[in-house]
Amino acid sequence: MKIIEGGVTAAKGFEAAVCEANIKYKDRTDMAMVFSKAPCVTAGTFTSNVVKAACVLWDKEIVESGKPLHGVVVNSGIANACTGQEGFDACEETAKAVEKNLNVPFISMAVASTGVIGMQLPVDKLVAGVKKMCTTLDSSLEAGTEASKAIMTTDTVNKEIAVQFEVGGKTITLGGMSKGSGMIHPNMCTMLGFLTTDLDIKKHLLQEALSEVVADTFNMISVDGDTSTNDTLLLMANGLANNDTIDEKNEDYETFKAALFEVCQYLAKKMAADGEGATKLFTAHVVNAKTKEEAKKLSRSIISSSLSKAAIYGCDANFGRFLCAMGYSGVDFDQNKVELFFQSKAGELQVFKYGVPLAFDEEYATKLMSEDEVIVFVDMHDGKEEATAWGCDLTYDYVKINADYRS
Amino acid sequence: MKIIEGGVTAAKGFEAAVCEANIKYKDRTDMAMVFSKAPCVTAGTFTSNVVKAACVLWDKEIVESGKPLHGVVVNSGIANACTGQEGFDACEETAKAVEKNLNVPFISMAVASTGVIGMQLPVDKLVAGVKKMCTTLDSSLEAGTEASKAIMTTDTVNKEIAVQFEVGGKTITLGGMSKGSGMIHPNMCTMLGFLTTDLDIKKHLLQEALSEVVADTFNMISVDGDTSTNDTLLLMANGLANNDTIDEKNEDYETFKAALFEVCQYLAKKMAADGEGATKLFTAHVVNAKTKEEAKKLSRSIISSSLSKAAIYGCDANFGRFLCAMGYSGVDFDQNKVELFFQSKAGELQVFKYGVPLAFDEEYATKLMSEDEVIVFVDMHDGKEEATAWGCDLTYDYVKINADYRS
Repeated sequence: MKIIEGGVTAAKGFEAAVCEANIKYKDRTDMAMVFSKAPCVTAGTFTSNVVKAACVLWDKEIVESGKPLHGVVVNSGIANACTGQEGFDACEETAKAVEKNLNVPFISMAVASTGVIGMQLPVDKLVAGVKKMCTTLDSSLEAGTEASKAIMTTDTVNKEIAVQFEVGGKTITLGGMSKGSGMIHPNMCTMLGFLTTDLDIKKHLLQEALSEVVADTFNMISVDGDTSTNDTLLLMANGLANNDTIDEKNEDYETFKAALFEVCQYLAKKMAADGEGATKLFTAHVVNAKTKEEAKKLSRSIISSSLSKAAIYGCDANFGRFLCAMGYSGVDFDQNKVELFFQSKAGELQVFKYGVPLAFDEEYATKLMSEDEVIVFVDMHDGKEEATAWGCDLTYDYVKINADYRS
Repeated sequence: MKIIEGGVTAAKGFEAAVCEANIKYKDRTDMAMVFSKAPCVTAGTFTSNVVKAACVLWDKEIVESGKPLHGVVVNSGIANACTGQEGFDACEETAKAVEKNLNVPFISMAVASTGVIGMQLPVDKLVAGVKKMCTTLDSSLEAGTEASKAIMTTDTVNKEIAVQFEVGGKTITLGGMSKGSGMIHPNMCTMLGFLTTDLDIKKHLLQEALSEVVADTFNMISVDGDTSTNDTLLLMANGLANNDTIDEKNEDYETFKAALFEVCQYLAKKMAADGEGATKLFTAHVVNAKTKEEAKKLSRSIISSSLSKAAIYGCDANFGRFLCAMGYSGVDFDQNKVELFFQSKAGELQVFKYGVPLAFDEEYATKLMSEDEVIVFVDMHDGKEEATAWGCDLTYDYVKINADYRS
């Protein structure tokens, strides 16, 4: 497997387009479209939030129906959540605008939204945007990059990646894009993410691979503990690579799953590092836990704690906060077995061993914690399972961004 | 029942003292002691965090043994958590210093600590402090107030209250003090709290009343989602009011429980409003929920959400965040039945009705949300149960306080 240039348009047969629809943002693109003339088998994961956005309900219905997809229309600025029947109608109108312009069934088009909750979408602007984008669809890598920019809200960088690998002598391409960066605390998947591949694979295997990979990637990040109403991750496979259809869990399936893992992990880490107001990536790596589930709970609790996140921001090796967060994670453990280290490019520092704090050089600790990524490494000495979770620091800017997001 | 002056020394037979032990803070009191010559039946609730501070283990053992208590020694600055055997020994040394000076069994003395986790206590300073305090115990109301100041960490105001009520023709006094103000997300009780009364009551009824009241007061507040390693609430009753011993759940018991509720609710709300960096009290009141448990989950989820807290800080009526927080609370509900209002001293404003956002005057919303207390009032139209939770806004100062708390 190798990483190549590009994102959602890297795989054969996928095109993208963007436009300035002026939905809420001014002077920037705020709509994107990803399209494949060849129909795609599609897998999806969606928010576990009880309050689901209209577009999530729309996409879930389509993905679960098993019908092929041709693409997705995305807007940033307004989330289309808490909008009742009018919100659901807006999804249908958007999809119907694609049907009208490109002659594909409207139920083959997914829609996705991100932005303010509790505001209605301006349907006329959406429909006009779709019309414009249908005439400018483009398979260039640049078109994919532009799409990854149009879906940004408070993100500071766009997020895309593409990889290639071999299946039965055929070169398969898998690409994707995603956006964060607040209301990020996945409990299914989080955020908006769109993955495209020219692989030929059965739908149930595509879904199984995606669900498994999401559990260890997107579901292991958190920016602020808030599970969004709009979380949507779609993976579309149009089969244009002409490989023998993957219809069982053979070596080809594993090759694909490994590539999918790399892509999802890359995008998930990018999202965590670009959390609202974040200055660094905050990683928790828990090893030798009793069960995988416990390793996950412990690592997620560490990176989700406001106090731990503030300490990471302040480059303060206040390790008690990390132990405290482990203590309320719901996992029962004996602190007398635990070892805790800080790690970064600058080195490693052990601060806690078997229930007792260790003396350490504060200056070295600060230096170590001033790097772009700080890892809290915890050895539970209680089993053989491990997990990694990714978050970011809590900064003034997080508060600033969110104290008046709507205006 | 009436509110009177004072705190932990308001009830008959309770004395307090403070001193500057220089444990970590300079030029301020950092130790306090509450003492009753008459032995007290005692109820307590403690943190549910798996990583329990040494003093929590010490107090749990004493309270659960059923032996009478004479008082508690408290220090601020260092939490005595994650400190192994040495930390537990520090508790014993502190209690033994009281035995030596006041001739009460050392196992009749509770100890409590609050401050940095993962640092050892300077036992010599503690013992010297106890010696000094044993000679300056004082039953004046001022002594109680001084104690409530000595236990503060990042609190900006001290927190105490006292009430009086009648039981069988006798006047009963109940007083208390508590401190916040970070690492506040109770899952038993939170923080340090000490309540004293001259009521004569059986221990099991004292514990039952306390546990029930805590569930609706201290367990319904959150500052930052972090359940501390040190949460301790002790209620000591020395019986000096000479009422007929309360030994069943009669009218007197209910009178006492109502007074206890008032005291705990007062202290809990004070703690929430004085959360680290907070500028206002943020209350969620959920009515007509299916069950009490669901009403609690919904209201707690609202006041715990970082995004909701930031919106409250920014006086931004971004109600979608509150619905979003309800959606991931673990409660299943239909948003089409929900109504949501903002309330404050300045008035009331409905923003969401039966699944649909309502148009509203932004200027009025901002004015309404600029008050000292902002209430999010939610009608679920799904049953008859209700609950209230208290939190605070998320501000720059929370980050500032916690980015480098240790130094």
